[in-house]
Amino acid sequence: MEQAGTRSGDTPVRQASLREHNLGLVLRHIAAGTGGPAGRAGGDGRAPSRADIAAATGLTRATVSALVDDLIGGRLVTEVAPARRTGAGRPALGLVLAGTGPVGLGLEINVDYLAACVVDLTGRVRHRAVHRADQRPAAPAEVLARVADLAGTVRTEAERQGLVHAGSALAVPGLVTADGVVRLAPNLGWRDVDVPAVLHGHPALGGGAALSVENEANLAALGELHAGGPASFLYVSGEIGIGAGLVLDGALLRGARGWSGELGHVAVRPDGPRCGCGAHGCLERYAGQDAILAAAGLADQQVTSDEAVARLTRLAGAAEPAALRALATAGAALGVAVAGVINVLDVDTVVLGGVYAPLAPWLVPAVGAEVAGRVLTAGWSPVTVRASRLGGDAAVVGAAGSVVRAVLDRPARWLADTVRP
Amino acid sequence: MEQAGTRSGDTPVRQASLREHNLGLVLRHIAAGTGGPAGRAGGDGRAPSRADIAAATGLTRATVSALVDDLIGGRLVTEVAPARRTGAGRPALGLVLAGTGPVGLGLEINVDYLAACVVDLTGRVRHRAVHRADQRPAAPAEVLARVADLAGTVRTEAERQGLVHAGSALAVPGLVTADGVVRLAPNLGWRDVDVPAVLHGHPALGGGAALSVENEANLAALGELHAGGPASFLYVSGEIGIGAGLVLDGALLRGARGWSGELGHVAVRPDGPRCGCGAHGCLERYAGQDAILAAAGLADQQVTSDEAVARLTRLAGAAEPAALRALATAGAALGVAVAGVINVLDVDTVVLGGVYAPLAPWLVPAVGAEVAGRVLTAGWSPVTVRASRLGGDAAVVGAAGSVVRAVLDRPARWLADTVRP
Repeated sequence: MEQAGTRSGDTPVRQASLREHNLGLVLRHIAAGTGGPAGRAGGDGRAPSRADIAAATGLTRATVSALVDDLIGGRLVTEVAPARRTGAGRPALGLVLAGTGPVGLGLEINVDYLAACVVDLTGRVRHRAVHRADQRPAAPAEVLARVADLAGTVRTEAERQGLVHAGSALAVPGLVTADGVVRLAPNLGWRDVDVPAVLHGHPALGGGAALSVENEANLAALGELHAGGPASFLYVSGEIGIGAGLVLDGALLRGARGWSGELGHVAVRPDGPRCGCGAHGCLERYAGQDAILAAAGLADQQVTSDEAVARLTRLAGAAEPAALRALATAGAALGVAVAGVINVLDVDTVVLGGVYAPLAPWLVPAVGAEVAGRVLTAGWSPVTVRASRLGGDAAVVGAAGSVVRAVLDRPARWLADTVRP
Repeated sequence: MEQAGTRSGDTPVRQASLREHNLGLVLRHIAAGTGGPAGRAGGDGRAPSRADIAAATGLTRATVSALVDDLIGGRLVTEVAPARRTGAGRPALGLVLAGTGPVGLGLEINVDYLAACVVDLTGRVRHRAVHRADQRPAAPAEVLARVADLAGTVRTEAERQGLVHAGSALAVPGLVTADGVVRLAPNLGWRDVDVPAVLHGHPALGGGAALSVENEANLAALGELHAGGPASFLYVSGEIGIGAGLVLDGALLRGARGWSGELGHVAVRPDGPRCGCGAHGCLERYAGQDAILAAAGLADQQVTSDEAVARLTRLAGAAEPAALRALATAGAALGVAVAGVINVLDVDTVVLGGVYAPLAPWLVPAVGAEVAGRVLTAGWSPVTVRASRLGGDAAVVGAAGSVVRAVLDRPARWLADTVRP
């Protein structure tokens, strides 16, 4: 044992884990060149050759070649025509992440829609589907059956394209335990729903890694990170409820029990109106989708909430005073809560997602003004407030991306599960 | 390079770093038995023998013995009489962290006092000194000269006890950059004070590691962690200003620029009274020391703020109505802000330090009531609110402890700097 260093600091390295480690090392180099989801900053667009990888990692060329052959065999990597000559000899083939191998299936349940999508290793969305309908009247098992059906449709299309199902992840707007039980989803009216148990054995979710279930704002934040977001930011997901995902130094901060990000229940006015959670003056009462629509005079209309948000966007674009007032009020409340988070956590970027993405032109100035006036450090280091790059799709794309990321993080496991009998 | 694993995941292990790694491994085993600052949970009180360490780490006995001899030579470890027989042969000597070797010098500047202390490797405070006086009228350079003089007094006493100066850390109630510049300390009235430059060459701070400067609440949170705090908690430091230190999974969360923890500037009522920072309704205006004393009718008296807090504690103990009202109001405001942090970050323990420690009997119920009513997850997992174990000393003890911790984390560096010529 004394010949080897250790991986975590206290655990001696086993010889057997070296191949696993080196597979990951090689794959990360290829991903960085591809600009896929593993290359957070977007990659440099240069597909490295086997020789490039050997030079960069300190591994021998023979070892790199054997590892690359395994990665190609597992459909994780593919060769591309050389982009340039490296010297006198034959130009070397470049290596990129495979767009034709494993894909992640992302699913999302929200109050007024269900969504599914398929993302490949390069981060590209290969197929998507959305089913718009209020999910509140249905029982949890019925909603889960619907989302599994949607998953089946999308998965069939992916398999028609020759892609390989690597696993599924489901985004839910609520508190989710580590084993996938939705402890509370206040706006869906769910309590203690054991999602893996309900969906167990459903054909659309079989094969690949087990279904994982995660808070939607957390998955949306990961989606934003993998889409080239900064290393540290606060992602705010505005829907009927308001969730947040915190990314610090490239990692999602889940909290002690995985229940971080309940921004909608931060008090904006401690003696304000009562919230569904039982407390008074929660942000959700000022800046949740229903609160904004009500303030703009667009509640209780016979349209879906999606159409109502589109209508609000049109009215705001036409400078209709009630719409502008509603958005300014919501933005100010959101700004107060966000400024509090920044004062405590010191992040310098705020990303607005969900319905906040299309409403960003009107929300950003109001949020920005509160942040500038309330964040103690704003004078030294201005805070950026902007719309999500993935818009309303961030959670479902982030869900699919989390599956892909797990494959890229542990390629040896993928190879063991798929290539070897 | 292919024979070895890697330490951080992307860096091949160099053979030369193995001794360094193994020194750390052995020292951590000894620290865990000692229950010193490296044994976070307090240790099991059993001093391991060389054979115990070999068995636990997988290193050979000969290697362990050589490493232990180096650690003893560097005064990091000492042998103690065997506590028990391990078999038929001669009882093995136990190994514990040395209380007679390197010590950290902790310093603190706060609005109404200066403090210094010396902490040894076992976490024991060997000497301390406090100088109570309002620091606001003095220029920053004068305050720094005073704290350096205090450091000199304490260091002289430590050297008289035969202890070895390992470095100094200074706690300041403000925003501190990575290179020790106090960007802003609002309640001291400091802006852009380059502490290392001002103190450069001061004899009390020479030798050992360079002086580090850090936010006081961050150092206090580290002090609480090393004193056996839980792995994740929010430390709240109540002084003239209110700072916070966030510990998640045993690590301090410093934020993107190291400026996390400005809890005092979280808005409790967005249209409340104007704060010194320029914003309205900041927590500091409701729960800062001066706000509490004013509400209790104890402001503007010809006593030090320390005496005023002692008087408030006595009045509250005697159930004087104005004192109880002032503490209930402050506790409720603190509870609103703390509940917001817990909703966003999901920590389950709140530690009240600074002047909040002696006032905890009256603050805890008010904070607890707001937290119970406002934290969405409180029903599943109650939040503990309690006084700091280190009381008002947490920051200065944490500062000294951070020096000691750096020695324990990198014993090879300490040995290279001190033992070898």
